[in-house]
Amino acid sequence: MKKSGIHKILVANRGEIALRIMRSAREMGIKTVAVFSEADRTMPFVQYADEAVCIGPAPSNQSYLLGDKIIAVAKEKGADSIHPGYGFLSENARFAQQVSDAGLTFIGPSAASIEVMGSKLAAKQAAQKFGVPMVPGTETPLRSVEEAREVVKKTGFPILIKASAGGGGKGMRVVNNPEELEEQIRMAKSEALNAFGDDAVFIEKYVGSPRHIEIQILGDQHGNCVYLFERECSIQRRHQKLIEEAPSSCLTPEIRAAMGACAVNVAKACDYYGAGTVEFLVDEQLNFYFLEMNTRLQVEHPVTELITGLDLVKEQIKIARGETLAFTQDSLQINGHAIELRICAEDPANNFLPDTGKLETYIRPQGYGVRVDDGYEQGMDIPIYYDPMIAKLIAWGANREEARHRLLRAIEEYQVKGIRTTLPFGQWALQQPAFITGHFDTNFIAKYFTPQALQEASETVNKLAAILAAQVWQEQNISLQQVTDTTIKSSAWKKRNTLR
Amino acid sequence: MKKSGIHKILVANRGEIALRIMRSAREMGIKTVAVFSEADRTMPFVQYADEAVCIGPAPSNQSYLLGDKIIAVAKEKGADSIHPGYGFLSENARFAQQVSDAGLTFIGPSAASIEVMGSKLAAKQAAQKFGVPMVPGTETPLRSVEEAREVVKKTGFPILIKASAGGGGKGMRVVNNPEELEEQIRMAKSEALNAFGDDAVFIEKYVGSPRHIEIQILGDQHGNCVYLFERECSIQRRHQKLIEEAPSSCLTPEIRAAMGACAVNVAKACDYYGAGTVEFLVDEQLNFYFLEMNTRLQVEHPVTELITGLDLVKEQIKIARGETLAFTQDSLQINGHAIELRICAEDPANNFLPDTGKLETYIRPQGYGVRVDDGYEQGMDIPIYYDPMIAKLIAWGANREEARHRLLRAIEEYQVKGIRTTLPFGQWALQQPAFITGHFDTNFIAKYFTPQALQEASETVNKLAAILAAQVWQEQNISLQQVTDTTIKSSAWKKRNTLR
Repeated sequence: MKKSGIHKILVANRGEIALRIMRSAREMGIKTVAVFSEADRTMPFVQYADEAVCIGPAPSNQSYLLGDKIIAVAKEKGADSIHPGYGFLSENARFAQQVSDAGLTFIGPSAASIEVMGSKLAAKQAAQKFGVPMVPGTETPLRSVEEAREVVKKTGFPILIKASAGGGGKGMRVVNNPEELEEQIRMAKSEALNAFGDDAVFIEKYVGSPRHIEIQILGDQHGNCVYLFERECSIQRRHQKLIEEAPSSCLTPEIRAAMGACAVNVAKACDYYGAGTVEFLVDEQLNFYFLEMNTRLQVEHPVTELITGLDLVKEQIKIARGETLAFTQDSLQINGHAIELRICAEDPANNFLPDTGKLETYIRPQGYGVRVDDGYEQGMDIPIYYDPMIAKLIAWGANREEARHRLLRAIEEYQVKGIRTTLPFGQWALQQPAFITGHFDTNFIAKYFTPQALQEASETVNKLAAILAAQVWQEQNISLQQVTDTTIKSSAWKKRNTLR
Repeated sequence: MKKSGIHKILVANRGEIALRIMRSAREMGIKTVAVFSEADRTMPFVQYADEAVCIGPAPSNQSYLLGDKIIAVAKEKGADSIHPGYGFLSENARFAQQVSDAGLTFIGPSAASIEVMGSKLAAKQAAQKFGVPMVPGTETPLRSVEEAREVVKKTGFPILIKASAGGGGKGMRVVNNPEELEEQIRMAKSEALNAFGDDAVFIEKYVGSPRHIEIQILGDQHGNCVYLFERECSIQRRHQKLIEEAPSSCLTPEIRAAMGACAVNVAKACDYYGAGTVEFLVDEQLNFYFLEMNTRLQVEHPVTELITGLDLVKEQIKIARGETLAFTQDSLQINGHAIELRICAEDPANNFLPDTGKLETYIRPQGYGVRVDDGYEQGMDIPIYYDPMIAKLIAWGANREEARHRLLRAIEEYQVKGIRTTLPFGQWALQQPAFITGHFDTNFIAKYFTPQALQEASETVNKLAAILAAQVWQEQNISLQQVTDTTIKSSAWKKRNTLR
């Protein structure tokens, strides 16, 4: 067990998450050191840090991924610890070990935990010992069609054939009935061989209309571990989340508790400490299956903060310095509801293609229950080298409807000119009947979204919608029928929330 | 009992509170109409409203105080209700009645309730029937020195002689012993006669080192009334609040409940409905005395919102349209801690003299737990005609220490150039041992504050302070000794939080 003072943190990241980490550090009286690429020289996180060091040109492999250099800067500046944020080096077990070997505190889990959870197969094997439910199927490469037929007797159809070396959907086939099985295995193997030079495939039961729901956990270095409830992250494009909320609108208290207990078991399976997230697929019958564990802070952590009152970065720091968790599972409770919209420099009307340019106008929404985590100021250029996320807009409400209306209000207030963003998408999505009723899955965008819908949404301001909005506000239980065939839209300031 | 739909609200106010009311209305799907003076034409609340009407030149008696004109605009624009905000017409019983007579809903209490609570004597008489504790003394004008001696037998010394028609400290004398009594009564009467043309004076027991603590109440039109706990408002200059927090650091759960019950009784004494605030003086022994009731939304209402999760403007609207309170006293609880700093265009180094000019730089703090309610944007002039408050900066934390550190962090992030503000005062005040320990009263500024202190605070950045800050962070119970002789100060961004 590591116990060490933390007085100066080097933040090995950029943008909104670097700034967000520094804010919590400052509130704890801890100094911060920023490292930055030449492209990021004028960014707020560089100005905000107590000290800042340029570590190289923009491509990440010449700056933010240079573990050795970052550790050297930490030593030189007298930092006693490194916070990796998310992305970059945050799930690099070797880096975590190097930080530790250099006598510094890695604000995150042990290198060993990162290692185990970094391999999907190793993670599943570790978790299985604790009885964590997995999507049924094979866990070794398929040897024959006969083996496949045996497996399908247990899983039933449809199944998914997946390339062992796979990724990005290549070598992946859905099989709906026994007649197709042999042919589809042959095609999957052929595709996998072409794509990865390896024809190994395996079988997983196909989960239709799944939700992506994850559990936030916190573990200390003394064996205590709690779950901070779930985040619903089903609204995605290109398998990347766009809207997240806590709690999920579909879980029952019993399933929440069962998933929480499973997540804690996954953490125990790799002797986890720090903040971590256990991701699950949830099917229409609310069966849940372990997907993977992210051994770092997640982009969407603010929704959990807003419903628990905890500051997850402060908790990470306290855990890293050897403190015992100051709360038990029983003392935690969900307070209200929070929804986050990722504001990305993308054009939702053009297949979410990344956009770049200058933030000619950039005015944030304000007021009760609205939080903006961002890393830019008006007048700045959005560089092409990094993730296109500009900001996270998060609204808290006493209940889901209040959070939704507040987020819509905040979206209308957000003034961005010069760059296309996902703001209009968020405005559209939050007014969809499927979102309002909470009946959606990871197919939400594929199923409902078209560029035309965006156009129509911004034009649909009529009396019916206003009346319906007032009704919905007063309803406790909203049924799908009530909100079908129209969108709910308040009108003003939309003119200010303009595209380029 | 009035029951009416509210679909369009005329907001009879300006600045931050107009904008704040409109945000809640928008979240409820309700349209808004702004009325504004010629001086306020470019302000955000005018742009934010669905419709806006200029009602006259800047002096309030030619615009914001023109009740008839405002009602005419409401009728013309098809508004069904008027929200008065605070100040201006908000506690004008005649206006409330006129609104009602015009067939509109006044979003506030009945004219009769405003009338009773608008007179201190009538308010005390109404409250006394419910056994609400008052500062002991006379409640009718003093007829003779002999009567005074009889009264003092009950109250003891010191006492306060107050002019019946008084205000602003005129005709007010503290009397410490029987020898001074006759002479001081003579002087008070003479002063009162000179100042108000009325020599009537009365006696009140002098409460030394008092705290100003107020209870927020909400009552519906069906006889239900709850208290939303207290706000500690003792840090004042010129009897105006500068820093407010909820909960108070000095109340016990028992005294909180007793004060809450009293506040509900005061409300019942005048058949109150809507949001209201019952103000108390609290002495060193935690005896509390009814001062007065404010029959409107208070400037400092956000701290109550942040610890209860309620949106008080939405509650006002729901009550006005005849809804029953959706919660009982037992279901309410305090969640964390909130502190508000009023950011006024004043020079704290020069006796808080109002300042005017242009907001050359105006960048708000962001991030978890920080709320800014304001009414200006960068580049705008602060007009001389109105209250000098530019913004309210509010921080929420899981406990008082987190809220305090978060507010300090937010003050450092706030960038205001072109106008002197109370930001440096807030930075100084939050680091005072008396504030940290919670041992302060309404004499806080008189007792501790000097312009030199401000100067020293901004220079005191030393190792000792940093170490102490880290210690204080970890301590649950902070004693005065630990924090005497130094201030706690994090250093960076202070350069950006600059005066003119």
